Amino acid sequence: MAPLPFSSPPQAILTQDELKKIAAYKAVEFVQSGMVLGLGTGSKAKHAVTRIGELLHQGKLTNIIGIPTSKMTHELASSVGIPLSDLDSHPIVDLAIDGADEVDPYMNLVKGRGGSLLREKMIEGACKKFVVIVDESKLVEHIGGSGLAMPVEIVPFCWKFTVERLRLLFDEAGCVARLRMDRESGEPFVTDNKNYIIDLYFEQDIGDLMVASDAILRLPGVVEHGMFLGMATTLIVAGGLGVRVKNK
Amino acid sequence: MAPLPFSSPPQAILTQDELKKIAAYKAVEFVQSGMVLGLGTGSKAKHAVTRIGELLHQGKLTNIIGIPTSKMTHELASSVGIPLSDLDSHPIVDLAIDGADEVDPYMNLVKGRGGSLLREKMIEGACKKFVVIVDESKLVEHIGGSGLAMPVEIVPFCWKFTVERLRLLFDEAGCVARLRMDRESGEPFVTDNKNYIIDLYFEQDIGDLMVASDAILRLPGVVEHGMFLGMATTLIVAGGLGVRVKNK
Repeated sequence: MAPLPFSSPPQAILTQDELKKIAAYKAVEFVQSGMVLGLGTGSKAKHAVTRIGELLHQGKLTNIIGIPTSKMTHELASSVGIPLSDLDSHPIVDLAIDGADEVDPYMNLVKGRGGSLLREKMIEGACKKFVVIVDESKLVEHIGGSGLAMPVEIVPFCWKFTVERLRLLFDEAGCVARLRMDRESGEPFVTDNKNYIIDLYFEQDIGDLMVASDAILRLPGVVEHGMFLGMATTLIVAGGLGVRVKNK
Repeated sequence: MAPLPFSSPPQAILTQDELKKIAAYKAVEFVQSGMVLGLGTGSKAKHAVTRIGELLHQGKLTNIIGIPTSKMTHELASSVGIPLSDLDSHPIVDLAIDGADEVDPYMNLVKGRGGSLLREKMIEGACKKFVVIVDESKLVEHIGGSGLAMPVEIVPFCWKFTVERLRLLFDEAGCVARLRMDRESGEPFVTDNKNYIIDLYFEQDIGDLMVASDAILRLPGVVEHGMFLGMATTLIVAGGLGVRVKNK
Protein backbone atom coordinates (compact mmCIF):
# COMPACT_ATOMS: atom_id res chain seq x y z
CA MET A 1 0.00 0.00 0.00
CA ALA A 2 1.27 3.50 -0.81
CA PRO A 3 2.25 5.56 2.26
CA LEU A 4 -0.67 7.51 3.62
CA PRO A 5 -0.46 11.05 4.96
CA PHE A 6 -0.36 11.30 8.71
CA SER A 7 -3.43 13.05 10.01
CA SER A 8 -2.36 13.29 13.63
CA PRO A 9 1.41 13.04 14.17
CA PRO A 10 2.01 12.07 17.79
CA GLN A 11 4.18 14.06 20.16
CA ALA A 12 5.54 11.03 21.97
CA ILE A 13 5.73 7.26 21.63
CA LEU A 14 2.26 5.86 22.29
CA THR A 15 1.28 2.46 23.66
CA GLN A 16 -0.67 0.03 21.45
CA ASP A 17 -3.81 0.67 23.44
CA GLU A 18 -3.44 4.45 23.20
CA LEU A 19 -3.02 4.14 19.44
CA LYS A 20 -6.13 1.95 19.16
CA LYS A 21 -8.02 4.56 21.16
CA ILE A 22 -6.87 7.44 18.95
CA ALA A 23 -7.87 5.45 15.85
CA ALA A 24 -11.27 4.62 17.34
CA TYR A 25 -11.88 8.27 18.30
CA LYS A 26 -10.95 9.27 14.76
CA ALA A 27 -13.56 6.81 13.45
CA VAL A 28 -16.20 8.22 15.78
CA GLU A 29 -15.65 11.68 14.27
CA PHE A 30 -17.68 10.34 11.29
CA VAL A 31 -20.71 9.80 13.55
CA GLN A 32 -23.43 12.44 13.48
CA SER A 33 -26.58 12.87 15.56
CA GLY A 34 -29.58 11.00 14.19
CA MET A 35 -27.57 8.19 12.64
CA VAL A 36 -28.29 4.46 12.63
CA LEU A 37 -24.90 2.88 13.42
CA GLY A 38 -23.49 -0.60 12.82
CA LEU A 39 -21.40 -1.41 15.89
CA GLY A 40 -18.50 -3.77 15.29
CA THR A 41 -16.88 -6.38 17.48
CA GLY A 42 -13.29 -6.58 18.81
CA SER A 43 -10.78 -4.44 20.66
CA LYS A 44 -10.88 -1.49 18.25
CA ALA A 45 -14.65 -1.42 17.86
CA LYS A 46 -14.88 -1.58 21.65
CA HIS A 47 -13.09 1.77 22.01
CA ALA A 48 -15.42 3.27 19.39
CA VAL A 49 -18.56 1.99 21.12
CA THR A 50 -17.36 3.34 24.47
CA ARG A 51 -16.58 6.70 22.89
CA ILE A 52 -20.05 6.92 21.28
CA GLY A 53 -21.56 6.24 24.71
CA GLU A 54 -19.46 9.06 26.19
CA LEU A 55 -20.55 11.56 23.52
CA LEU A 56 -24.22 10.58 24.02
CA HIS A 57 -23.80 11.07 27.75
CA GLN A 58 -22.21 14.49 27.20
CA GLY A 59 -25.05 15.47 24.87
CA LYS A 60 -22.63 15.96 21.97
CA LEU A 61 -24.44 13.22 20.06
CA THR A 62 -28.21 12.66 20.17
CA ASN A 63 -30.76 10.36 18.60
CA ILE A 64 -28.35 7.53 17.80
CA ILE A 65 -29.51 3.95 17.18
CA GLY A 66 -26.94 1.15 17.31
CA ILE A 67 -27.12 -2.20 15.50
CA PRO A 68 -24.67 -4.53 17.27
CA THR A 69 -22.79 -7.18 15.24
CA SER A 70 -22.49 -9.60 18.17
CA LYS A 71 -23.87 -10.42 21.59
CA MET A 72 -20.67 -9.06 23.15
CA THR A 73 -21.14 -5.69 21.44
CA HIS A 74 -24.83 -5.74 22.36
CA GLU A 75 -23.89 -5.96 26.03
CA LEU A 76 -21.18 -3.31 25.85
CA ALA A 77 -23.35 -0.87 23.90
CA SER A 78 -26.23 -1.35 26.34
CA SER A 79 -23.93 -0.75 29.28
CA VAL A 80 -22.71 2.60 27.87
CA GLY A 81 -26.25 3.73 27.11
CA ILE A 82 -26.55 3.38 23.32
CA PRO A 83 -30.18 2.67 22.26
CA LEU A 84 -30.16 -0.55 20.21
CA SER A 85 -32.20 -2.06 17.41
CA ASP A 86 -31.75 -4.57 14.58
CA LEU A 87 -31.74 -4.78 10.78
CA ASP A 88 -35.35 -5.97 10.65
CA SER A 89 -36.45 -2.67 12.22
CA HIS A 90 -33.71 -0.50 10.68
CA PRO A 91 -32.73 -1.97 7.32
CA ILE A 92 -30.77 1.12 6.29
CA VAL A 93 -27.61 1.78 8.30
CA ASP A 94 -25.89 5.15 7.94
CA LEU A 95 -22.44 4.19 9.16
CA ALA A 96 -20.66 1.16 10.58
CA ILE A 97 -17.39 1.08 12.50
CA ASP A 98 -15.46 -2.16 12.87
CA GLY A 99 -12.01 -3.72 12.81
CA ALA A 100 -10.66 -6.21 10.24
CA ASP A 101 -8.22 -9.11 10.21
CA GLU A 102 -6.61 -8.15 6.90
CA VAL A 103 -6.83 -5.19 4.52
CA ASP A 104 -5.43 -5.28 0.98
CA PRO A 105 -4.32 -2.20 -1.01
CA TYR A 106 -7.82 -1.88 -2.52
CA MET A 107 -9.45 -1.81 0.93
CA ASN A 108 -10.82 -5.31 0.54
CA LEU A 109 -11.02 -6.96 3.96
CA VAL A 110 -10.85 -10.33 5.64
CA LYS A 111 -13.06 -10.48 8.69
CA GLY A 112 -14.62 -13.12 10.87
CA ARG A 113 -11.67 -14.73 12.58
CA GLY A 114 -13.84 -14.21 15.65
CA GLY A 115 -16.56 -16.32 13.98
CA SER A 116 -19.35 -13.74 13.54
CA LEU A 117 -18.68 -12.93 9.89
CA LEU A 118 -22.24 -13.48 8.72
CA ARG A 119 -23.87 -10.97 11.07
CA GLU A 120 -21.09 -8.49 10.42
CA LYS A 121 -21.53 -8.85 6.67
CA MET A 122 -25.31 -8.47 6.85
CA ILE A 123 -25.04 -5.27 8.87
CA GLU A 124 -21.97 -3.77 7.21
CA GLY A 125 -23.31 -4.71 3.78
CA ALA A 126 -26.37 -2.56 4.56
CA CYS A 127 -24.27 0.54 5.37
CA LYS A 128 -23.90 3.74 3.43
CA LYS A 129 -20.45 4.29 4.98
CA PHE A 130 -18.18 1.70 6.54
CA VAL A 131 -15.20 2.91 8.57
CA VAL A 132 -12.59 0.24 9.26
CA ILE A 133 -9.99 0.58 12.02
CA VAL A 134 -6.83 -1.54 11.91
CA ASP A 135 -3.25 -1.46 13.08
CA GLU A 136 -0.46 -1.59 10.52
CA SER A 137 0.13 -5.32 11.00
CA LYS A 138 -3.22 -5.98 9.27
CA LEU A 139 -2.14 -4.36 5.99
CA VAL A 140 -1.33 -7.05 3.41
CA GLU A 141 -0.30 -7.09 -0.23
CA HIS A 142 -3.02 -9.62 -1.02
CA ILE A 143 -5.81 -11.41 0.84
CA GLY A 144 -4.31 -14.29 2.81
CA GLY A 145 -0.93 -12.54 2.77
CA SER A 146 -0.66 -12.47 6.55
CA GLY A 147 -0.59 -16.27 6.61
CA LEU A 148 -3.70 -16.20 8.76
CA ALA A 149 -7.08 -17.70 7.96
CA MET A 150 -9.83 -16.58 5.59
CA PRO A 151 -12.91 -18.10 7.26
CA VAL A 152 -15.87 -19.67 5.43
CA GLU A 153 -19.13 -20.48 7.23
CA ILE A 154 -20.67 -23.76 6.05
CA VAL A 155 -23.58 -25.99 7.06
CA PRO A 156 -22.52 -28.99 9.17
CA PHE A 157 -24.21 -31.51 6.79
CA CYS A 158 -21.43 -33.39 4.90
CA TRP A 159 -18.85 -30.81 5.96
CA LYS A 160 -15.89 -32.97 4.91
CA PHE A 161 -17.20 -32.94 1.37
CA THR A 162 -17.53 -29.14 1.42
CA VAL A 163 -14.04 -28.69 2.90
CA GLU A 164 -12.51 -30.68 0.07
CA ARG A 165 -14.44 -28.73 -2.56
CA LEU A 166 -13.27 -25.45 -0.98
CA ARG A 167 -9.66 -26.62 -0.92
CA LEU A 168 -9.83 -27.72 -4.56
CA LEU A 169 -11.12 -24.29 -5.62
CA PHE A 170 -7.80 -22.78 -4.50
CA ASP A 171 -5.53 -25.75 -5.11
CA GLU A 172 -3.25 -23.69 -7.33
CA ALA A 173 -2.79 -21.11 -4.58
CA GLY A 174 -1.53 -23.87 -2.24
CA CYS A 175 -4.69 -23.78 -0.16
CA VAL A 176 -4.96 -25.57 3.15
CA ALA A 177 -8.50 -25.92 4.60
CA ARG A 178 -9.19 -26.72 8.24
CA LEU A 179 -12.34 -27.15 10.27
CA ARG A 180 -12.19 -24.65 13.14
CA MET A 181 -12.28 -26.36 16.53
CA ASP A 182 -13.50 -25.01 19.83
CA ARG A 183 -10.38 -25.02 22.02
CA GLU A 184 -12.26 -25.61 25.24
CA SER A 185 -14.58 -28.43 24.21
CA GLY A 186 -12.41 -30.02 21.53
CA GLU A 187 -15.57 -30.14 19.35
CA PRO A 188 -16.08 -28.21 16.10
CA PHE A 189 -16.59 -24.48 16.69
CA VAL A 190 -20.27 -23.59 16.14
CA THR A 191 -21.34 -20.13 14.95
CA ASP A 192 -24.32 -18.10 16.21
CA ASN A 193 -26.21 -19.58 13.23
CA LYS A 194 -25.34 -23.18 14.27
CA ASN A 195 -22.90 -23.61 11.41
CA TYR A 196 -19.22 -24.63 11.16
CA ILE A 197 -16.25 -22.48 10.14
CA ILE A 198 -13.65 -23.68 7.64
CA ASP A 199 -10.40 -21.70 7.82
CA LEU A 200 -8.68 -21.36 4.45
CA TYR A 201 -4.95 -20.59 4.30
CA PHE A 202 -3.43 -19.48 1.00
CA GLU A 203 0.26 -19.82 0.12
CA GLN A 204 -0.17 -17.51 -2.85
CA ASP A 205 -2.37 -14.71 -4.13
CA ILE A 206 -5.77 -16.16 -5.13
CA GLY A 207 -6.24 -13.64 -7.97
CA ASP A 208 -9.52 -11.89 -8.80
CA LEU A 209 -11.39 -11.71 -5.50
CA MET A 210 -14.87 -11.26 -6.99
CA VAL A 211 -14.34 -14.42 -9.03
CA ALA A 212 -13.10 -16.22 -5.91
CA SER A 213 -16.09 -14.94 -3.93
CA ASP A 214 -18.66 -16.17 -6.46
CA ALA A 215 -16.90 -19.54 -6.76
CA ILE A 216 -17.08 -20.02 -2.98
CA LEU A 217 -20.70 -18.88 -2.72
CA ARG A 218 -21.75 -21.20 -5.56
CA LEU A 219 -20.71 -24.28 -3.57
CA PRO A 220 -23.83 -25.77 -2.01
CA GLY A 221 -23.17 -26.01 1.72
CA VAL A 222 -21.39 -22.64 1.89
CA VAL A 223 -23.29 -19.97 3.82
CA GLU A 224 -20.87 -17.03 3.69
CA HIS A 225 -17.16 -16.18 3.54
CA GLY A 226 -15.00 -13.64 5.34
CA MET A 227 -13.93 -11.53 2.34
CA PHE A 228 -15.59 -8.09 2.53
CA LEU A 229 -15.06 -6.79 -0.99
CA GLY A 230 -15.62 -3.17 -1.97
CA MET A 231 -17.48 -2.51 1.28
CA ALA A 232 -15.06 -0.34 3.31
CA THR A 233 -15.31 3.39 2.50
CA THR A 234 -12.75 4.71 5.03
CA LEU A 235 -9.69 3.06 6.49
CA ILE A 236 -8.10 4.25 9.72
CA VAL A 237 -4.64 2.81 10.35
CA ALA A 238 -3.00 2.99 13.75
CA GLY A 239 0.76 2.77 13.25
CA GLY A 240 3.89 3.32 15.30
CA LEU A 241 3.97 6.94 14.18
CA GLY A 242 0.32 7.81 14.63
CA VAL A 243 -3.00 7.42 12.88
CA ARG A 244 -3.58 7.65 9.12
CA VAL A 245 -6.91 7.99 7.33
CA LYS A 246 -7.56 6.71 3.81
CA ASN A 247 -10.82 7.31 1.96
CA LYS A 248 -12.05 5.29 -0.97
CA MET B 1 -40.01 -26.72 -25.47
CA ALA B 2 -39.84 -28.48 -28.88
CA PRO B 3 -41.76 -31.77 -29.06
CA LEU B 4 -39.63 -34.74 -28.06
CA PRO B 5 -39.72 -38.11 -29.78
CA PHE B 6 -41.75 -40.72 -27.95
CA SER B 7 -39.56 -43.54 -26.73
CA SER B 8 -42.31 -45.79 -25.46
CA PRO B 9 -45.71 -45.12 -27.03
CA PRO B 10 -48.36 -46.63 -24.80
CA GLN B 11 -50.88 -49.20 -26.00
CA ALA B 12 -53.69 -47.83 -23.86
CA ILE B 13 -54.54 -44.85 -21.66
CA LEU B 14 -52.41 -45.07 -18.55
CA THR B 15 -53.12 -43.75 -15.08
CA GLN B 16 -50.94 -40.99 -13.62
CA ASP B 17 -49.30 -43.47 -11.30
CA GLU B 18 -48.58 -45.94 -14.09
CA LEU B 19 -46.99 -43.15 -16.10
CA LYS B 20 -44.82 -42.13 -13.16
CA LYS B 21 -43.75 -45.72 -12.80
CA ILE B 22 -42.85 -46.08 -16.48
CA ALA B 23 -40.84 -42.86 -16.30
CA ALA B 24 -39.05 -44.01 -13.14
CA TYR B 25 -38.24 -47.40 -14.70
CA LYS B 26 -36.87 -45.58 -17.74
CA ALA B 27 -34.61 -43.57 -15.43
CA VAL B 28 -33.39 -46.71 -13.70
CA GLU B 29 -32.25 -48.07 -17.08
CA PHE B 30 -29.32 -45.64 -16.68
CA VAL B 31 -28.17 -47.42 -13.51
CA GLN B 32 -25.32 -49.90 -13.83
CA SER B 33 -23.79 -52.29 -11.33
CA GLY B 34 -21.01 -50.75 -9.24
CA MET B 35 -22.46 -47.23 -9.28
CA VAL B 36 -22.73 -44.72 -6.46
CA LEU B 37 -26.27 -43.32 -6.81
CA GLY B 38 -27.88 -40.11 -5.59
CA LEU B 39 -31.42 -41.04 -4.54
CA GLY B 40 -33.98 -38.27 -4.87
CA THR B 41 -37.09 -37.47 -2.85
CA GLY B 42 -40.74 -37.38 -3.91
CA SER B 43 -43.29 -39.54 -5.70
CA LYS B 44 -41.25 -40.10 -8.87
CA ALA B 45 -37.96 -40.77 -7.11
CA LYS B 46 -39.85 -43.19 -4.85
CA HIS B 47 -40.72 -45.44 -7.81
CA ALA B 48 -37.08 -45.33 -8.94
CA VAL B 49 -35.74 -46.26 -5.51
CA THR B 50 -38.21 -49.15 -5.24
CA ARG B 51 -37.21 -50.36 -8.73
CA ILE B 52 -33.49 -50.27 -7.86
CA GLY B 53 -34.24 -52.36 -4.77
CA GLU B 54 -36.10 -54.89 -6.95
CA LEU B 55 -33.23 -55.18 -9.44
CA LEU B 56 -30.73 -55.65 -6.58
CA HIS B 57 -32.94 -58.37 -5.12
CA GLN B 58 -33.17 -60.10 -8.51
CA GLY B 59 -29.37 -59.94 -8.88
CA LYS B 60 -29.70 -57.81 -12.05
CA LEU B 61 -27.83 -55.01 -10.28
CA THR B 62 -24.95 -55.55 -7.86
CA ASN B 63 -22.56 -53.44 -5.84
CA ILE B 64 -24.75 -50.32 -5.68
CA ILE B 65 -24.27 -47.61 -3.05
CA GLY B 66 -27.07 -45.11 -2.51
CA ILE B 67 -26.74 -41.54 -1.17
CA PRO B 68 -30.20 -40.44 -0.02
CA THR B 69 -31.25 -36.78 -0.35
CA SER B 70 -33.62 -36.89 2.62
CA LYS B 71 -34.50 -38.86 5.72
CA MET B 72 -37.61 -40.13 3.96
CA THR B 73 -35.57 -41.55 1.09
CA HIS B 74 -33.06 -42.95 3.58
CA GLU B 75 -35.84 -44.99 5.17
CA LEU B 76 -37.35 -46.16 1.89
CA ALA B 77 -33.98 -47.14 0.40
CA SER B 78 -33.04 -49.06 3.55
CA SER B 79 -36.36 -50.88 3.50
CA VAL B 80 -35.84 -52.09 -0.08
CA GLY B 81 -32.28 -53.23 0.64
CA ILE B 82 -30.09 -50.56 -0.99
CA PRO B 83 -26.75 -50.18 0.86
CA LEU B 84 -26.41 -46.50 1.87
CA SER B 85 -23.58 -44.06 2.44
CA ASP B 86 -23.01 -40.28 2.37
CA LEU B 87 -21.03 -37.64 0.47
CA ASP B 88 -18.29 -37.54 3.09
CA SER B 89 -17.47 -41.20 2.35
CA HIS B 90 -18.41 -41.12 -1.36
CA PRO B 91 -17.74 -37.62 -2.70
CA ILE B 92 -18.10 -38.73 -6.33
CA VAL B 93 -21.59 -39.80 -7.37
CA ASP B 94 -22.03 -41.60 -10.70
CA LEU B 95 -25.69 -40.90 -11.25
CA ALA B 96 -28.59 -39.25 -9.46
CA ILE B 97 -32.31 -39.70 -10.14
CA ASP B 98 -34.81 -37.16 -8.84
CA GLY B 99 -37.94 -35.19 -9.69
CA ALA B 100 -38.23 -31.43 -10.14
CA ASP B 101 -40.86 -28.74 -9.56
CA GLU B 102 -40.19 -26.90 -12.83
CA VAL B 103 -38.04 -27.53 -15.92
CA ASP B 104 -37.32 -24.82 -18.49
CA PRO B 105 -36.46 -25.47 -22.18
CA TYR B 106 -32.72 -25.53 -21.31
CA MET B 107 -33.23 -28.20 -18.64
CA ASN B 108 -32.70 -25.75 -15.81
CA LEU B 109 -34.75 -26.83 -12.81
CA VAL B 110 -36.54 -25.48 -9.79
CA LYS B 111 -36.42 -27.87 -6.89
CA GLY B 112 -36.93 -27.75 -3.17
CA ARG B 113 -40.61 -27.05 -2.77
CA GLY B 114 -40.34 -29.93 -0.32
CA GLY B 115 -37.72 -27.94 1.61
CA SER B 116 -34.64 -30.16 1.18
CA LEU B 117 -33.04 -28.20 -1.65
CA LEU B 118 -29.64 -27.85 -0.01
CA ARG B 119 -29.00 -31.56 0.47
CA GLU B 120 -30.34 -32.28 -2.99
CA LYS B 121 -28.06 -29.66 -4.53
CA MET B 122 -25.01 -30.93 -2.66
CA ILE B 123 -25.59 -34.50 -3.83
CA GLU B 124 -26.85 -33.78 -7.33
CA GLY B 125 -24.12 -31.18 -7.84
CA ALA B 126 -21.58 -33.94 -7.19
CA CYS B 127 -23.02 -36.21 -9.92
CA LYS B 128 -21.56 -37.18 -13.24
CA LYS B 129 -25.07 -37.78 -14.61
CA PHE B 130 -28.34 -36.41 -13.29
CA VAL B 131 -31.57 -37.95 -14.60
CA VAL B 132 -34.67 -35.87 -13.86
CA ILE B 133 -38.17 -37.31 -14.00
CA VAL B 134 -41.16 -35.00 -14.37
CA ASP B 135 -44.68 -34.99 -15.70
CA GLU B 136 -45.62 -32.59 -18.49
CA SER B 137 -47.20 -30.08 -16.10
CA LYS B 138 -43.70 -29.23 -14.80
CA LEU B 139 -42.44 -28.00 -18.17
CA VAL B 140 -42.35 -24.18 -18.22
CA GLU B 141 -41.25 -21.54 -20.69
CA HIS B 142 -39.19 -19.83 -18.01
CA ILE B 143 -38.31 -20.40 -14.34
CA GLY B 144 -41.25 -19.28 -12.20
CA GLY B 145 -43.57 -19.71 -15.18
CA SER B 146 -45.81 -22.19 -13.36
CA GLY B 147 -46.75 -19.47 -10.88
CA LEU B 148 -45.37 -21.66 -8.11
CA ALA B 149 -42.51 -20.83 -5.74
CA MET B 150 -38.75 -20.71 -6.26
CA PRO B 151 -37.50 -21.40 -2.73
CA VAL B 152 -34.47 -19.75 -1.10
CA GLU B 153 -32.97 -21.11 2.12
CA ILE B 154 -31.84 -18.33 4.48
CA VAL B 155 -30.50 -18.04 8.03
CA PRO B 156 -33.20 -17.01 10.55
CA PHE B 157 -31.12 -14.03 11.84
CA CYS B 158 -32.79 -10.81 10.58
CA TRP B 159 -34.87 -12.76 8.08
CA LYS B 160 -37.21 -9.85 7.35
CA PHE B 161 -34.24 -7.86 6.16
CA THR B 162 -33.14 -10.69 3.86
CA VAL B 163 -36.67 -11.19 2.49
CA GLU B 164 -36.85 -7.56 1.47
CA ARG B 165 -33.43 -7.67 -0.19
CA LEU B 166 -34.48 -10.80 -2.11
CA ARG B 167 -37.71 -9.17 -3.23
CA LEU B 168 -35.89 -6.03 -4.37
CA LEU B 169 -33.48 -8.12 -6.50
CA PHE B 170 -36.44 -9.17 -8.66
CA ASP B 171 -38.63 -6.11 -8.25
CA GLU B 172 -38.82 -5.62 -12.02
CA ALA B 173 -40.08 -9.17 -12.49
CA GLY B 174 -42.99 -8.43 -10.11
CA CYS B 175 -41.50 -10.58 -7.37
CA VAL B 176 -43.48 -11.53 -4.27
CA ALA B 177 -41.46 -13.03 -1.40
CA ARG B 178 -43.03 -15.00 1.45
CA LEU B 179 -41.65 -16.73 4.50
CA ARG B 180 -42.72 -20.36 4.30
CA MET B 181 -44.84 -21.38 7.28
CA ASP B 182 -45.34 -24.80 8.79
CA ARG B 183 -49.03 -25.50 8.31
CA GLU B 184 -49.35 -27.63 11.41
CA SER B 185 -47.56 -25.47 13.96
CA GLY B 186 -48.23 -22.06 12.40
CA GLU B 187 -44.54 -21.28 13.03
CA PRO B 188 -41.95 -20.65 10.29
CA PHE B 189 -41.00 -23.83 8.43
CA VAL B 190 -37.52 -24.95 9.53
CA THR B 191 -35.22 -26.91 7.19
CA ASP B 192 -33.00 -29.89 8.12
CA ASN B 193 -30.23 -27.30 8.53
CA LYS B 194 -32.31 -25.19 10.98
CA ASN B 195 -32.87 -22.44 8.41
CA TYR B 196 -35.94 -20.72 6.99
CA ILE B 197 -37.32 -20.90 3.44
CA ILE B 198 -38.39 -17.80 1.50
CA ASP B 199 -40.68 -18.62 -1.42
CA LEU B 200 -40.19 -16.26 -4.37
CA TYR B 201 -42.96 -15.87 -6.96
CA PHE B 202 -42.18 -14.15 -10.24
CA GLU B 203 -44.78 -12.49 -12.45
CA GLN B 204 -42.32 -12.30 -15.32
CA ASP B 205 -39.21 -13.98 -16.68
CA ILE B 206 -36.23 -13.07 -14.44
CA GLY B 207 -33.77 -13.11 -17.34
CA ASP B 208 -30.25 -14.59 -17.17
CA LEU B 209 -30.46 -17.31 -14.53
CA MET B 210 -26.73 -17.46 -13.76
CA VAL B 211 -26.78 -13.72 -13.07
CA ALA B 212 -29.86 -14.17 -10.88
CA SER B 213 -28.20 -17.08 -9.07
CA ASP B 214 -25.05 -15.13 -8.23
CA ALA B 215 -27.08 -12.10 -7.13
CA ILE B 216 -29.06 -14.27 -4.71
CA LEU B 217 -26.00 -16.09 -3.38
CA ARG B 218 -24.16 -12.80 -2.80
CA LEU B 219 -26.78 -11.65 -0.29
CA PRO B 220 -25.42 -12.32 3.19
CA GLY B 221 -28.00 -14.44 4.98
CA VAL B 222 -28.77 -16.57 1.91
CA VAL B 223 -27.65 -20.19 2.21
CA GLU B 224 -28.87 -21.67 -1.09
CA HIS B 225 -31.61 -21.35 -3.70
CA GLY B 226 -33.74 -23.84 -5.56
CA MET B 227 -32.55 -23.16 -9.12
CA PHE B 228 -30.52 -26.13 -10.38
CA LEU B 229 -28.77 -24.66 -13.40
CA GLY B 230 -26.96 -26.75 -16.00
CA MET B 231 -27.05 -29.79 -13.72
CA ALA B 232 -29.60 -32.11 -15.35
CA THR B 233 -28.13 -34.32 -18.08
CA THR B 234 -31.25 -36.33 -18.96
CA LEU B 235 -34.90 -35.41 -18.73
CA ILE B 236 -37.66 -38.01 -18.65
CA VAL B 237 -41.13 -36.60 -19.21
CA ALA B 238 -44.25 -38.57 -18.41
CA GLY B 239 -47.09 -37.23 -20.55
CA GLY B 240 -50.59 -38.24 -21.49
CA LEU B 241 -49.24 -40.10 -24.51
CA GLY B 242 -46.30 -41.87 -22.86
CA VAL B 243 -42.77 -41.21 -21.78
CA ARG B 244 -40.24 -39.03 -23.62
CA VAL B 245 -36.48 -38.87 -23.02
CA LYS B 246 -34.37 -35.80 -23.70
CA ASN B 247 -30.59 -35.77 -23.33
CA LYS B 248 -28.51 -32.67 -22.93
